[in-house]
Amino acid sequence: MRKISVIGIGETKMGKLADRSLHDLIREAGNNAIADAGIDKKQIDALYMGNFNGSYLCGQGHMGSLAIEVLELGNIPAVRTEGACASGSLAFRMAVMSIMAGVYDIALVGGVEKMTHQSTPTVTTAIASAMDYDLEAMQGFTFPACFAMIAHRYFYEYRNVKREMGLCAYNAHQNALLNPDAQMQKDVPLEKILAADMIASPLSLYDCSLVTDGAAFVVLAASDVAESLESKHRAVELVGSGHAGDTLTLASKKVITSFSASKAAAAQAYGQAGLKAADIDFAEVHDCFTITQIINTEDLGFFDPGKGADAVAEGVTARDGKKPINVSGGLKAKGHPIGATGISQIFEVVTQIRGNAGNRQLKKADIGLAHNLGGSAGTCVINIFRGR
Amino acid sequence: MRKISVIGIGETKMGKLADRSLHDLIREAGNNAIADAGIDKKQIDALYMGNFNGSYLCGQGHMGSLAIEVLELGNIPAVRTEGACASGSLAFRMAVMSIMAGVYDIALVGGVEKMTHQSTPTVTTAIASAMDYDLEAMQGFTFPACFAMIAHRYFYEYRNVKREMGLCAYNAHQNALLNPDAQMQKDVPLEKILAADMIASPLSLYDCSLVTDGAAFVVLAASDVAESLESKHRAVELVGSGHAGDTLTLASKKVITSFSASKAAAAQAYGQAGLKAADIDFAEVHDCFTITQIINTEDLGFFDPGKGADAVAEGVTARDGKKPINVSGGLKAKGHPIGATGISQIFEVVTQIRGNAGNRQLKKADIGLAHNLGGSAGTCVINIFRGR
Repeated sequence: MRKISVIGIGETKMGKLADRSLHDLIREAGNNAIADAGIDKKQIDALYMGNFNGSYLCGQGHMGSLAIEVLELGNIPAVRTEGACASGSLAFRMAVMSIMAGVYDIALVGGVEKMTHQSTPTVTTAIASAMDYDLEAMQGFTFPACFAMIAHRYFYEYRNVKREMGLCAYNAHQNALLNPDAQMQKDVPLEKILAADMIASPLSLYDCSLVTDGAAFVVLAASDVAESLESKHRAVELVGSGHAGDTLTLASKKVITSFSASKAAAAQAYGQAGLKAADIDFAEVHDCFTITQIINTEDLGFFDPGKGADAVAEGVTARDGKKPINVSGGLKAKGHPIGATGISQIFEVVTQIRGNAGNRQLKKADIGLAHNLGGSAGTCVINIFRGR
Repeated sequence: MRKISVIGIGETKMGKLADRSLHDLIREAGNNAIADAGIDKKQIDALYMGNFNGSYLCGQGHMGSLAIEVLELGNIPAVRTEGACASGSLAFRMAVMSIMAGVYDIALVGGVEKMTHQSTPTVTTAIASAMDYDLEAMQGFTFPACFAMIAHRYFYEYRNVKREMGLCAYNAHQNALLNPDAQMQKDVPLEKILAADMIASPLSLYDCSLVTDGAAFVVLAASDVAESLESKHRAVELVGSGHAGDTLTLASKKVITSFSASKAAAAQAYGQAGLKAADIDFAEVHDCFTITQIINTEDLGFFDPGKGADAVAEGVTARDGKKPINVSGGLKAKGHPIGATGISQIFEVVTQIRGNAGNRQLKKADIGLAHNLGGSAGTCVINIFRGR
């Protein structure tokens, strides 16, 4: 298999960016990634764009062609990928396979979403398109309700982890304080988190991720090509990549306290990398809700089933813990610009491995993992990166 | 490069299918393609789903996971691709690269769209998401208006080809009479076509493709794997594949009587296949409007610039001509279920090469080409197939 490296990264500030268009977001993050890679635009062979629901939220589809125009990329091939909240890392996955195939040498991979200009009901409807419309959304089901059921079942199978869910949010906000790109840079006390209004029991306000505008891009190159390019950064190689799916509806899943797509994708990524869960220094995992983060860390093999919350309580997942999770602030506090989320996770992993994370820099960040989930785990993409 | 073959095909009847859900369409076409391939579902490594705008038209995104559930495909990886009207062939292209990379051996590729349940204004808005929302759609621009401007410019550069555009529609309807999957099986006289109501001058009713519900699937396999499978059909190999992009807005293009994305994708496909335009026996080309068909046949090198209409007038592109175009009935008469269109084109090419096209079977159908365009040619995918 041809090896692949990340040679450039760029992202916008995440948040409520009322005065910025999709064009603006793509232009800033895309050009930053290209500049960071130190390449000429003519060296880019292909473009992959993750976007979840610009069609509904912004009246804008065909995001590949839009990005070609905004970034002035000529006649290169472009495609938009979508798999709910995993749309961004699906773009990454497609780019990886095209370079592995030897079709392209250098690919630009981006993700973008603009959401905050819409009303809450419109955003809720847009997000509900990631579940089954006929069988779920039309019956009044929403994602907070969906993950509330998952949390309840987790409580039933193991124990009440409401406090540890709150600690996930607390850690996310503490980490986001150190991330200039984060949407919410607020020092939120645990007591406030635990006493917040209920959204869908047992999920309260701080258990839910944010509605966010933003874009993130990375430049990938075949490692043999990357080595011929000058770079001011530590080389970051993709050592393992996994992608798996599952049924769309929650009711069709036999187990909901663990996600089979995550487990299957993790097995692929670890197998390709020749690494175990214990070898991963840090990870960005998909915390659309705090319970999801806990389950993901179990599915990734970081902790035994039912023990993910204990690890949070013991400080293992905090920035200064043994297995730092979501040091960027995660979807919870950095933000969740849906189509950009998977790429922004990779942005953070690469930034940490390079040693460029400033005040939130981890001491040991040689091997990092990004885990991106779509819907009620109907899609999962996992990538493992290693500094050289 | 690892060679790839199409080992299974399936599609629904195209049309106004009011009583059929997205689930139904996917189930029928997907299972037909799998049965046609004669494989077990467990042999399928990955799923690629083309869909243009289910999010807006049906409240349904995350079509990869939906299809996993409907087709009972377990934990295989799935992704939805979108590039306006080229969404289906983008799924095909991603599948091809993943098999070339050696990541997968057998991939299921589908496309689906459900449109006819919505009102004309809603469908128009949904389709307009394939252009630039801020710079075009919000200014009142629509696709009929867009291709009307292209037609006017073509008339200015070359000559008035209104009659030949009508002949394209006439041929499409004649061909569709012989295609049981076609949406419009009507014998429409040329006089009626030419006298029809104007939609956007010079495009009248029959110059415009249809609004269609439908799904189409193909099964791809590495040729080395395909050879180990039993098949009742003639082997059909993908011998050339091309994909190129261009800017999104019409105003940004220096030339609009020829599409640079088509030319770039064609050069790739011909180069890979080691074939010239003259070697192609027949083609399905993207006739979203009749003028587009004429331009495409020039960009593909079948005819000189400005001479595509002459070829239509001389009968060259008719079913019994030297270069039959859109023998399926095309987007004009078979229908244009947007996300499924690119796959349905491939369905027809494979059906012809196999010699299974019944009353519309071409005498010489060894090498066929499928050309799929997105938006005002911001995306183009071209694939060339050859029987063995």
